[in-house]
Amino acid sequence: MQQERQLHYGLIVRIYGDEKCFGPGIAQLLERVQVTHSLRQAAASMNMAYSKAWRIVKTAEETLGFKLLMSVTGGKGGGGAELTAEALNFLQRFREFESALRSYADEAFVEFFS
Amino acid sequence: MQQERQLHYGLIVRIYGDEKCFGPGIAQLLERVQVTHSLRQAAASMNMAYSKAWRIVKTAEETLGFKLLMSVTGGKGGGGAELTAEALNFLQRFREFESALRSYADEAFVEFFS
Repeated sequence: MQQERQLHYGLIVRIYGDEKCFGPGIAQLLERVQVTHSLRQAAASMNMAYSKAWRIVKTAEETLGFKLLMSVTGGKGGGGAELTAEALNFLQRFREFESALRSYADEAFVEFFS
Repeated sequence: MQQERQLHYGLIVRIYGDEKCFGPGIAQLLERVQVTHSLRQAAASMNMAYSKAWRIVKTAEETLGFKLLMSVTGGKGGGGAELTAEALNFLQRFREFESALRSYADEAFVEFFS
């Protein structure tokens, strides 16, 4: 019997309503919208088709029951897409939930696999 | 602003060595080998091609550094595939790790999303 090799774990957290609506993909997409102020640029930066990004956002909005993105016109940057207050709040809770699970999993992994 | 809809979470846990080696798929496959004593029947019961099941088991064995399945010949059932002691042990730890994370996540989800 060989020694068990060096292992680590991976964790994917998703939120569901009637269907899958929020996970690592849309979280990253929204975070990139915060930076680029553009769903199109955010999608491109993840090598994701704009049509797919749009569909992911629409499905999540329908399932969650609130808007995630809003259009901002004018201003110094010439306008673009911004996250709604509800989106910012939900995104933050998602990341905190993920982070809490990872902290717990780090300890549990050592307990079960060391 | 609409009320946030009824939500729940989903969690996928995987174990990695040099590459992905153990997750819900192979765990279920091994549990079905325990019942059917056959990798072929276990795969079929999951609508998985035998070649895929075989590859998943081989990759996991290579990454983990120990055998998961052994052939048993003869006996009342006419022989077949059985889990090695190391596989039984690892499978149990995987299910316990998963279960511990879900218990924690159940509470954390209420905290973050209620």
